[in-house]
Amino acid sequence: MVLMAQEWKSEHLLDTSQLSMNELKAILARAQYWEDNWRPGMNPYRGRFAANLFFEPSTRTRFSFEVAEKKLGMEVVNFTPDASSTTKGESLYDTVKTLSRIGIEVAVIRHSDPEAVKELARQEVGCKIINAGAGHWAHPTQALLDLYTMLKHVGDLSGKTIAIIGDIAHSRVVRSNLWTLKRFGANVILSGPEVMRDRECEQDAPYVPFAEALETADIVMMLRVQLERHHEHLFTSNLDYHEQYGLTLDRLHLMKPDAIIMHPGPFNRGVELADEVVEHPRSKIFEQKANGVWIRMALLERALKGEEA
Amino acid sequence: MVLMAQEWKSEHLLDTSQLSMNELKAILARAQYWEDNWRPGMNPYRGRFAANLFFEPSTRTRFSFEVAEKKLGMEVVNFTPDASSTTKGESLYDTVKTLSRIGIEVAVIRHSDPEAVKELARQEVGCKIINAGAGHWAHPTQALLDLYTMLKHVGDLSGKTIAIIGDIAHSRVVRSNLWTLKRFGANVILSGPEVMRDRECEQDAPYVPFAEALETADIVMMLRVQLERHHEHLFTSNLDYHEQYGLTLDRLHLMKPDAIIMHPGPFNRGVELADEVVEHPRSKIFEQKANGVWIRMALLERALKGEEA
Amino acid sequence: MVLMAQEWKSEHLLDTSQLSMNELKAILARAQYWEDNWRPGMNPYRGRFAANLFFEPSTRTRFSFEVAEKKLGMEVVNFTPDASSTTKGESLYDTVKTLSRIGIEVAVIRHSDPEAVKELARQEVGCKIINAGAGHWAHPTQALLDLYTMLKHVGDLSGKTIAIIGDIAHSRVVRSNLWTLKRFGANVILSGPEVMRDRECEQDAPYVPFAEALETADIVMMLRVQLERHHEHLFTSNLDYHEQYGLTLDRLHLMKPDAIIMHPGPFNRGVELADEVVEHPRSKIFEQKANGVWIRMALLERALKGEEA
Repeated sequence: MVLMAQEWKSEHLLDTSQLSMNELKAILARAQYWEDNWRPGMNPYRGRFAANLFFEPSTRTRFSFEVAEKKLGMEVVNFTPDASSTTKGESLYDTVKTLSRIGIEVAVIRHSDPEAVKELARQEVGCKIINAGAGHWAHPTQALLDLYTMLKHVGDLSGKTIAIIGDIAHSRVVRSNLWTLKRFGANVILSGPEVMRDRECEQDAPYVPFAEALETADIVMMLRVQLERHHEHLFTSNLDYHEQYGLTLDRLHLMKPDAIIMHPGPFNRGVELADEVVEHPRSKIFEQKANGVWIRMALLERALKGEEA
Repeated sequence: MVLMAQEWKSEHLLDTSQLSMNELKAILARAQYWEDNWRPGMNPYRGRFAANLFFEPSTRTRFSFEVAEKKLGMEVVNFTPDASSTTKGESLYDTVKTLSRIGIEVAVIRHSDPEAVKELARQEVGCKIINAGAGHWAHPTQALLDLYTMLKHVGDLSGKTIAIIGDIAHSRVVRSNLWTLKRFGANVILSGPEVMRDRECEQDAPYVPFAEALETADIVMMLRVQLERHHEHLFTSNLDYHEQYGLTLDRLHLMKPDAIIMHPGPFNRGVELADEVVEHPRSKIFEQKANGVWIRMALLERALKGEEA
Repeated sequence: MVLMAQEWKSEHLLDTSQLSMNELKAILARAQYWEDNWRPGMNPYRGRFAANLFFEPSTRTRFSFEVAEKKLGMEVVNFTPDASSTTKGESLYDTVKTLSRIGIEVAVIRHSDPEAVKELARQEVGCKIINAGAGHWAHPTQALLDLYTMLKHVGDLSGKTIAIIGDIAHSRVVRSNLWTLKRFGANVILSGPEVMRDRECEQDAPYVPFAEALETADIVMMLRVQLERHHEHLFTSNLDYHEQYGLTLDRLHLMKPDAIIMHPGPFNRGVELADEVVEHPRSKIFEQKANGVWIRMALLERALKGEEA
């Protein structure tokens, strides 16, 4: 697989839908390579520059990228919107083109507007763009770390059932996951409150009642719910949501004996997940964080062409 | 002493009270080792990751840690509360556990709530916690750099008198210092305005009038005063405080001929310290900043187990 | 020229006016050296520490310095005003002196008050100061990268005409550029709206009408205009300004056939520059960004004494 990395073309990453099966497998294999082989002091990409531009709050994705970059030996600059010229009205294009001209080779971008990363990729700004979360549209690095985690625990996904449960409509994770899971032959089902359903997603995955989703799934992926943003009028409180749609210890017993629990984070304890479920032996939530670093190392290498891998 | 560092167990650092005399001596010796031997280009801990999480403003402590980490060759990620998922309500436990899972080995934390670092240490988040200032409770790395500075100038502290003067009640430095200074046989006295006295601290160190404190001390440690926070009704202005309790050039002449002046910083010129006193030959205030780096390098090594030292 | 760098004395950089012709040439030659020879993995100044202190928003200058520092292998700490002890009222002197004592050798400072960097240089804070933009007074690193860019395209500047156009009165770039361009024998002319004229600058460079400036210049340097700050009452809108003083494609045809366009950035598309002009073949605007890194590497070396170059 090291050879495969060497043969990569340098590419933007906008969403999982752009990745062929061969590319997906190369990325997964390369993540596994780093998980097996990375040791402190390795710095195969030293002197290569990445910029992290997060226009929305983030802990896990931002630090996961920064650690991945530094484990590759890259130099990192972190862009925080309020301390920069964007407060003087500069366009994102001009900011990223400037970064590219001063030596940035990869720009990792989180932005509320999905068009932001798409535009940058179209406009050939001179550096490679990695989408680190784009509005409700896509979050490809999350979907790839989810895929990597699933394959480790379930092995072949073909014929397996994966239930994605919660706020489907406002999740950027669902769309990116649907694409990869379908390619790997998985059977995806969706569940959650009526008001959080999403017609577009349901073209690829049927909506089923909550109990049925729990009972039939090999993997249960719970989604973050933000009642304060969207649904205050429908649930009287977080507790109300938790009682109707939270994954509690009781409901965990509805699941198949070897089914696992996942969540893209950040999770709300006591809302979509009971406290006791977060670190339950069946939960792979914190393992997902660890896997995110290896996946992002592979994706950064892809952006850098894998020349030196 | 290099051997001692190698034998260290990896440990959290919550306060000085947890450190045995042997540990204290090993830390001091290791700080001296770095002061004597560090040269640009050394990076014994390269590829090891630290995260700095400062939930309160800080210049000297935060940069002192960052420089210490980088002088050891460590990789550093800096967490700023407002740009992160804590704005989405994530708990500190979940944040730090996530950091740990993505590869952070040491988390340096400043928090207004002393329970924050204690809880993290109890909960075994997977990385070592260093308390970089916890509310009014403790500031162990400051106390250790104070101790290191004192030993350099006064030698054996046994029987020496150290006066800590100012806002005792709101200082996290006093408690952490009391512990170490007592162990080293020093005689600690406290002074300052009546309203800033602290009963708990006075169990370990008597309260004396300001002039007496200055006259008897071998070391005068002035504390930062924040009138705007606590005592507006008692002093009509900073100048008023300065006239009653500031260390002026006049009052400096009350001190023993070879007594030195210290301050944990950030100091208020014209409030607890006269302008001319800050860089007076007797003042070791800026030397304390320099010593902080060597002490913190020793403490980071302790957290990392000193394996490679 | 490598030899020259080795012979440099470590110096502050406050403005271009302090640089002798020999120093200017050494800086330009050293920038060229880095442009020709820098490769990933080089780190001649590793383990040396820089701090970036930006008290005003900035993208290009701040990241340009950070990349320059890291291309030299330096360690970098970034100071953001709101998360630091300056919120507790600490003076800039005390902050920078503290940074110096913990090991910072070069402090790169942007500040709205020109006295800030001058004072620090006078007070011998223990580290070298590089002015990264000081109010309306000076921006020497911008002027030097402008000079470097001009020399590449125009060769000998002697007898050449450089038109600086726009908000002369509020620009820190003009003063710093006037000094270097005069030394290199260039003929500088100024233009722009009456209300943006500056008597002091006009002692060194005549004011001419906009069309005449465009027609006679070998280099046209457009300046950023901030209508919202200063001149709302004079122009009804950005469009109004653009129509009167913007460099449009039509006006570009007034220019000499081989004249080039520059802008210190961040630029306002549709105000002082038409969209189509920003990346016109005659525009060297993004090349200026690239050149800024090489110039800043040379200036950081100068601050560090060039010992190891």
